[in-house]
Amino acid sequence: MTNPKGDEYAVIGTRPPRVDAADKATGRARFGPDTDLPRLLHGKILRSPHAHARILSIDTSRAEAFPGVHAVVTAKDLPAAQDLAAALGEADIDLKYRCDNTLASDKVLYVGHAIAAVAACDPHTAEQAAQLIDVEYEVLPAVMDVLDAAREDAPLIHENMRTWSLAGTSEAPSNVANHFQSVKGDPETGFAEADLVVEREIRTATVHHSYIEPHATTATWGPDGTLTVHPTTQGAFGIRDQLASLLRYPLSKIRVVPTEVGGAFGGKSTSYLDAVAALLSRKTGRPVKMVMTRAETFLATGPTSGTVIRVKIGAKKDGRITAAQAALYYEAGAFPGAPLWGGMGVVLAAYDIPHGQIDGYDVVVNKPKAETYRAPGGTPPVFAVEQVIDELAEQTGTDPLEFRLLNRAQEGTQRVNGGVHTSVSSYEVLKAVQAHAHYSAPLEGPHRGRGIAFGHWGNYGGSSSCTLDVNSDGTVSLVTGSVDITGTRTSLAMQAAETLELTLDRVRPTVGDTDSVGYTEGSYGSRTTMATGVAVVTAAKDAIAQMCERAAMLWNVPAEAVSYRKGTFTAGGDGSPQLTFAELAAQLPRTGGAVTGVGNVHVDEWGGSFGAHIVDVAVDPETGKVTILRYTAVQDAGRAIHPSLVEGQMQGGAVQGIGWALYEGYRCYCLSSDWSEQKAA
Amino acid sequence: MTNPKGDEYAVIGTRPPRVDAADKATGRARFGPDTDLPRLLHGKILRSPHAHARILSIDTSRAEAFPGVHAVVTAKDLPAAQDLAAALGEADIDLKYRCDNTLASDKVLYVGHAIAAVAACDPHTAEQAAQLIDVEYEVLPAVMDVLDAAREDAPLIHENMRTWSLAGTSEAPSNVANHFQSVKGDPETGFAEADLVVEREIRTATVHHSYIEPHATTATWGPDGTLTVHPTTQGAFGIRDQLASLLRYPLSKIRVVPTEVGGAFGGKSTSYLDAVAALLSRKTGRPVKMVMTRAETFLATGPTSGTVIRVKIGAKKDGRITAAQAALYYEAGAFPGAPLWGGMGVVLAAYDIPHGQIDGYDVVVNKPKAETYRAPGGTPPVFAVEQVIDELAEQTGTDPLEFRLLNRAQEGTQRVNGGVHTSVSSYEVLKAVQAHAHYSAPLEGPHRGRGIAFGHWGNYGGSSSCTLDVNSDGTVSLVTGSVDITGTRTSLAMQAAETLELTLDRVRPTVGDTDSVGYTEGSYGSRTTMATGVAVVTAAKDAIAQMCERAAMLWNVPAEAVSYRKGTFTAGGDGSPQLTFAELAAQLPRTGGAVTGVGNVHVDEWGGSFGAHIVDVAVDPETGKVTILRYTAVQDAGRAIHPSLVEGQMQGGAVQGIGWALYEGYRCYCLSSDWSEQKAA
Repeated sequence: MTNPKGDEYAVIGTRPPRVDAADKATGRARFGPDTDLPRLLHGKILRSPHAHARILSIDTSRAEAFPGVHAVVTAKDLPAAQDLAAALGEADIDLKYRCDNTLASDKVLYVGHAIAAVAACDPHTAEQAAQLIDVEYEVLPAVMDVLDAAREDAPLIHENMRTWSLAGTSEAPSNVANHFQSVKGDPETGFAEADLVVEREIRTATVHHSYIEPHATTATWGPDGTLTVHPTTQGAFGIRDQLASLLRYPLSKIRVVPTEVGGAFGGKSTSYLDAVAALLSRKTGRPVKMVMTRAETFLATGPTSGTVIRVKIGAKKDGRITAAQAALYYEAGAFPGAPLWGGMGVVLAAYDIPHGQIDGYDVVVNKPKAETYRAPGGTPPVFAVEQVIDELAEQTGTDPLEFRLLNRAQEGTQRVNGGVHTSVSSYEVLKAVQAHAHYSAPLEGPHRGRGIAFGHWGNYGGSSSCTLDVNSDGTVSLVTGSVDITGTRTSLAMQAAETLELTLDRVRPTVGDTDSVGYTEGSYGSRTTMATGVAVVTAAKDAIAQMCERAAMLWNVPAEAVSYRKGTFTAGGDGSPQLTFAELAAQLPRTGGAVTGVGNVHVDEWGGSFGAHIVDVAVDPETGKVTILRYTAVQDAGRAIHPSLVEGQMQGGAVQGIGWALYEGYRCYCLSSDWSEQKAA
Repeated sequence: MTNPKGDEYAVIGTRPPRVDAADKATGRARFGPDTDLPRLLHGKILRSPHAHARILSIDTSRAEAFPGVHAVVTAKDLPAAQDLAAALGEADIDLKYRCDNTLASDKVLYVGHAIAAVAACDPHTAEQAAQLIDVEYEVLPAVMDVLDAAREDAPLIHENMRTWSLAGTSEAPSNVANHFQSVKGDPETGFAEADLVVEREIRTATVHHSYIEPHATTATWGPDGTLTVHPTTQGAFGIRDQLASLLRYPLSKIRVVPTEVGGAFGGKSTSYLDAVAALLSRKTGRPVKMVMTRAETFLATGPTSGTVIRVKIGAKKDGRITAAQAALYYEAGAFPGAPLWGGMGVVLAAYDIPHGQIDGYDVVVNKPKAETYRAPGGTPPVFAVEQVIDELAEQTGTDPLEFRLLNRAQEGTQRVNGGVHTSVSSYEVLKAVQAHAHYSAPLEGPHRGRGIAFGHWGNYGGSSSCTLDVNSDGTVSLVTGSVDITGTRTSLAMQAAETLELTLDRVRPTVGDTDSVGYTEGSYGSRTTMATGVAVVTAAKDAIAQMCERAAMLWNVPAEAVSYRKGTFTAGGDGSPQLTFAELAAQLPRTGGAVTGVGNVHVDEWGGSFGAHIVDVAVDPETGKVTILRYTAVQDAGRAIHPSLVEGQMQGGAVQGIGWALYEGYRCYCLSSDWSEQKAA
């Protein structure tokens, strides 16, 4: 591989050890629950035992009197909730939902919904005291199933919520918060042209990311009004934004210092505990740590949407698709906002669909609020479409891979949900599957099968910031605003080293807190190595340009006469002066002070990417048990900065997909009040 | 006061509460000894009971076997000391001195000299175990007095040390490390022209800064090789530099996170404990905290030089000075490097001396290594000169103030120690004294007197860095590399607010660690509010320029069409678009990402400043006790950013000067081996 200067890449594409490897392998890395501060108190939350109930009263007096308890908070202590109670405007409804999901005010909407919190001398005391908070409930019928919840006669989770659609807002209240729709061409005409049509409905379970590390945070509200929070999160600035709105507090007075993260997968962008810990800290004048149990993580943090997906695709006898239609019913959980944008974005995106329609329904149910989870919302509808594609291939007598090759989206293909495909590697990906030994390997033995699936994901760019300080010994300190959840400190340092033409060990990357680096979006959407990488390359080029100016000053030549190649600055020409990076670094104080390269970017352009997987399975016909025999992933990853980390992403994605497909799912909540059960009885 | 735009200053010159006030007033600020980390060990140092002795052997086995002890280190563990033992080059001698002052290798040179250190489960165990380290000494004669030490027959503290002077290096070894000399004109001629000459010798005691907070540090050597240190210091980057050389370790792998500082006054720039704590942490794999006792701080950290000063000044009958000569003998302590540069710089600098000579002698004695202390080295010789000036005034029958007005340095006056006075306020300062009610107030009662003193100090600029991030709510996060020892977070934030034309509460200043901001020299030499202030103003202007570009992008006009006044960006002209700072801040992501203003500067120009004090005292003729009746300080402080903080500097300086003059001083060391005593006996 060669860089823009025509040289072989020296650092990019290699597989150095991760900079965080030793810390993590030896147990020295500090994760969310590891934060320890003098005079630390421990917080615990009282959670709802009911999936749906009105809160009639909350009496915290017994908890407050419990020995070892320092403070108790409820929704009444949440500044934004107080303001909203005074006057709730149209624009505030999203904030009200976020307040209510932090600490319930009038109703509880799922089992595990937070109601109140206690700060005490230790976690056990806090837990015991939380159980002494007396809450009077009026239990209401709960609705768990997305199709049941969408019915007109379903119990309403939010009494005043209306369905938003392009046509306007519904008159009657409904659990369907949003109905999104995209249409391309004329689906009716398309289906009329089809020789055969396959229509299927599939259901996917509500599943949780199940990161190893539970949610945790530690908040310290200082006497000077500064709030410092150490959360486990994918994005320190996102937590700061949420705290600022929940607490009605200026951003500059909130400092979020992210810890190491023990897995996130899209589930650690929402702030669950931080505002509660902050309020407890403000009341007690001491730092307060809150760590969820595994059960709390399942009960009260984002699973991703369980779904019902209806897919209908028509094709000609020759296998060419004429029309496709998809309806996506997504559980939003207790508050609107299921990741439908992801589902609608990818459901038909891998194929060239002449006429198509996508309907997405964002439906509240009595479950924890749904969160993003690896290619948010994309997995269920692609799973559904790929079933239908396989059936169409079978019915038209086409090889499933050839069927996909025939109908694949190409450069210029208009997507049903809007936009046009650019920079498309669908052909290369499918051809790589076809050429792979796995695809043509014999599949011996009974009850065995091989399947392929094909999909597209859009990726993301966004805002990233970094600073790059040149030290006087020629080493470099790189501070990025991106939390490192997948080894990005290493992949970002590699891009700095490559651009600076230095060895990797000269670059020390760290994750900044919100006070020490510019605004940076969270580490999600496959954006970090790319967008923060652009920031890092920008900062490195900035530093080199500044150092060229310093060399020019020393040599008394114009800055444009100085060039930098392979670690050395020169003024050009035979016998001209030279300085290595380290030699020039040592001269910075006498040439104007330190050099700080800055890279603050908002990346607006990025490519989508295609992937295809091949899997061999054996099915036990007695038990239904499925054994994975062989699994191959083909992915257009772009330029792999650190191939081992890219492979790790693909391996982890495959394993989580297998778990979702075969094993995982949320079951039975508070059945006593389940409307579907009652209705059926 | 008006700013360069012609507006009244809105923030500069006001007296807002310090941003650290609440934290400090409520005891929540975290000073060096407050650092607490999980699995923390505590380190203690074994110190020499002898003022001068050869170390014959060190046996750490009993200490290592002591229950609760985790590690013991000696000079053998210090990487630089190992390298130097292998091959000591000419250039390494300063590093060898620094190694030996960290942990003694072959000799101990003062009572309290560090020899070995123990890390244990608690400080008491560490202290007890340190006493179990067996050291065999050959006690040597010690020399305490600076004039005795300079004698040819004095015991040598460093057997191979020669006197450096402009004439070359002496043949014979000596305790006089350096003899500096400055000459202006022809002193002999000058004294020949004088009608009268006064010559005096004064002695000043060895005194300690006596900051409230003792020296403390906590070091964590991570398994990934990163060393993180939390010291109480005036300069995080200086500590990093010292650690890098003592430990032979790259700068980028050392992160220094400065704590709040409980007083420094020039005494907290040297790293005493950090390398030792780092080595103990590397050996144990755990964080190690070391906190000195008050006694250790006196015994082993920089006092400032005790001195002998000889001053001779000649004048005409009319009071005009014709010549002056000063000889400065400074205790360097156990290693060369007394703050003679400061003493020579100011000794004759307040006056216009036609012919002059200054000789400075840097003399090692068996005391802790001398450190800088408020106008380093300047106080003793100015005290001596002002005595002589007063006598000359008396003998010529001139009013002491008029005498000073007559002979004061003016713009263009050549200094004896080189350089020319610029931007001189000597007249204004002395006239302010003359006009002050104190100067003409009657002095009633017996045994009372009034004195004045007059002096000049050079100040300093140097390297400072900061970054200024604009938050989306229009608040600003300001990270500077300057440790805040005197309220500089506030005075720097004020300069940012003034430049950004925002209220002060919109700017949140913090002190960065060495990983998060560019190289910044320590907070000494009265440089922080000035030089880091220049960095802050630079960064604020950079941020405004970037924001003008963003506004131009939104309005589709050239960047130079956009101006910023009083918190609002406009494109100029009637009805043109406007955006407040906060409104534009909210638009940053969609216009290219975050805005980070950078100010990395090396300030090469700065003004010196004059000051004069008036004091009334009463002396008890029976006991000699002196009571301060009234004290007035006049100081050319330049533009006072925060007048209360400037006043605090003057008050503190006066109080420390009074203490030095009347009460303080180091007395008797290990007298058993005192060469002066033995010689006399």
